[in-house]
Amino acid sequence: MPKLTAERLLAYARSIFEAAGAPAGAAQRVAESLVLSNLVGHDSHGVIRIPQYIKAIRAGALDPAVAPSLVRETATTALIDGHWGWGQVAAWRAVEVAVAKATDAHLAAVSLVNSYHVGRCGEYVEEVARRGMIGLLTLNNSGGAAQVAPFGGRERRLASNPIAFAAPTSGAPLLVDMTSSVVAEGKVRVLRNQGKLAPEGWLIDAAGRPTRDPNALYSSPPGALLPLGGSLGHKGYGLSVLVEVLSGALSGAGCTNLAAKHVGNAVFLEAIRVDAFTTTEQYYAEVDGLVASLKSCPPAEGFEEVLLPGEPEHRTEKRRRAEGIEIDAETWRQIGDVATSLSLAIPEA
Amino acid sequence: MPKLTAERLLAYARSIFEAAGAPAGAAQRVAESLVLSNLVGHDSHGVIRIPQYIKAIRAGALDPAVAPSLVRETATTALIDGHWGWGQVAAWRAVEVAVAKATDAHLAAVSLVNSYHVGRCGEYVEEVARRGMIGLLTLNNSGGAAQVAPFGGRERRLASNPIAFAAPTSGAPLLVDMTSSVVAEGKVRVLRNQGKLAPEGWLIDAAGRPTRDPNALYSSPPGALLPLGGSLGHKGYGLSVLVEVLSGALSGAGCTNLAAKHVGNAVFLEAIRVDAFTTTEQYYAEVDGLVASLKSCPPAEGFEEVLLPGEPEHRTEKRRRAEGIEIDAETWRQIGDVATSLSLAIPEA
Repeated sequence: MPKLTAERLLAYARSIFEAAGAPAGAAQRVAESLVLSNLVGHDSHGVIRIPQYIKAIRAGALDPAVAPSLVRETATTALIDGHWGWGQVAAWRAVEVAVAKATDAHLAAVSLVNSYHVGRCGEYVEEVARRGMIGLLTLNNSGGAAQVAPFGGRERRLASNPIAFAAPTSGAPLLVDMTSSVVAEGKVRVLRNQGKLAPEGWLIDAAGRPTRDPNALYSSPPGALLPLGGSLGHKGYGLSVLVEVLSGALSGAGCTNLAAKHVGNAVFLEAIRVDAFTTTEQYYAEVDGLVASLKSCPPAEGFEEVLLPGEPEHRTEKRRRAEGIEIDAETWRQIGDVATSLSLAIPEA
Repeated sequence: MPKLTAERLLAYARSIFEAAGAPAGAAQRVAESLVLSNLVGHDSHGVIRIPQYIKAIRAGALDPAVAPSLVRETATTALIDGHWGWGQVAAWRAVEVAVAKATDAHLAAVSLVNSYHVGRCGEYVEEVARRGMIGLLTLNNSGGAAQVAPFGGRERRLASNPIAFAAPTSGAPLLVDMTSSVVAEGKVRVLRNQGKLAPEGWLIDAAGRPTRDPNALYSSPPGALLPLGGSLGHKGYGLSVLVEVLSGALSGAGCTNLAAKHVGNAVFLEAIRVDAFTTTEQYYAEVDGLVASLKSCPPAEGFEEVLLPGEPEHRTEKRRRAEGIEIDAETWRQIGDVATSLSLAIPEA
């Protein structure tokens, strides 16, 4: 399997985006975001996306040259229009604006609309945390990509609607990055491609019956993913509706609907100063105490240790920065085809 | 089974709180909150709490006469000290302050510390929504009441850590009110008292093994509740940590720990104007569209219809306002004992 250092993979991705029309800064930003997803172990949001992005540029769904603009703001809020350019560039702008406003106002929220795929949600809240603030993000697909049934329903009405949260500690930030559906659609796609069954409780077929067949999600009429929670799925459903309200209705980008034409990401991002209510010292004493308490917990049957939210990602990043990033052969081939089509050389791997 | 109108139950509860030392306004507030919980069907947070509250007053854990005070504020934030008085009174103060600040600043957050039990979380975010704003609330138990194991762990390190959210629509508000654990501890207590087994996936015993025996939660050493999500319990765990950071660390009230002495509620409450990023008209068009989309979804196998988050509560409230509230005989007897001990008459029921 091809294996590259993060630096070489980054340079390769950047050269592809530049050749496809991205300004140097945007190409660097998007390449960094994808490679960081590979580094932390979320390969589904890594360089596997390069062919998709180049295809979107060629189809006119992604403008590689446009920059996001701040279209409306108050002391605590800002609305950023991505103009259907790079989501990663627009979401980093959202981070900058949210942190700057929260520095003055203690808390601030930014809505990002008309944005192409922003990639991994956790990246943005973790960046807020690295700047010393608490970050909270919700995201829908600008009204598109309905894949999830409401609790008790049999048709798709919601997207996978993730929630991400990060908080600074004296060590690595605490990091939560989760869909409100049982899983993201991509995990079902992988199982289908491998000819495997899905676990119980992930899927229903088009008749609203539980099924383990991944093909049910891709049939016509299609089945649906279920909200998080199993028999307590009203909780995942509730979280999904929370995401729709914050990302879809509050932003104006649109709640998930079956008529949406332009699929992208609509983002609600909030930053909160850790000394908004108490002192910085007390905040860190409490959050470090929480970390120590969680890590002191002996493991349950079948587990080796208790991990903090974000700890699996931080461990994988450390390992892959040292050892390099393996890319599966099919993804490597597809990226190579894109590079060739842009008259770029394919690096040794 | 005793059955009373909401009005008569309210008057009875109010008279008890007044006799126990609450000022008239506080007694009315707490009685209204408890009766509203009964009305919406959450009897676990209704008048069943009266004996607990009176016991807490007598034990010195709840001061019935003290009023909350605003101890620190900025244009967007406020810290309210409940002085270990009535949680409902302090939480309503938090609603007032959050909505007033958000009216000017578009968004605002309030932390409430040193508060006794606030009751049902949904009440406060729904009140924010009735005032035309989006409400978000998280709550821990001021560091106490550890009952939930972290994902992969076998000992208690977290509380049930609820998240509540409400958003205005042209109809009733959307309302989410959920623990980040599979269920609240009270549901296991009910099963134990009934001699029934718990569903799979709720509990582990003290050795960290899955169990369906409710007694496992009350043994010595005790077992633990599990976070929401089953095999995907890292998600409920992540939400629980989010709640700890916002309610425990950010507020300064304290994250859940095994040494906590004073159990109460530490609350993070945020209010957001619906026109923070777009127009009020566009917000309502989007959120009403979401409601219509969800209600149009045909039911899955085993369901009769798709309900909106909050719809079960709104339906129960309508019915109980018309038909009265049934109180189980044991709860009625316990409240009667409290009334008698305060030299109050017990109403006919």
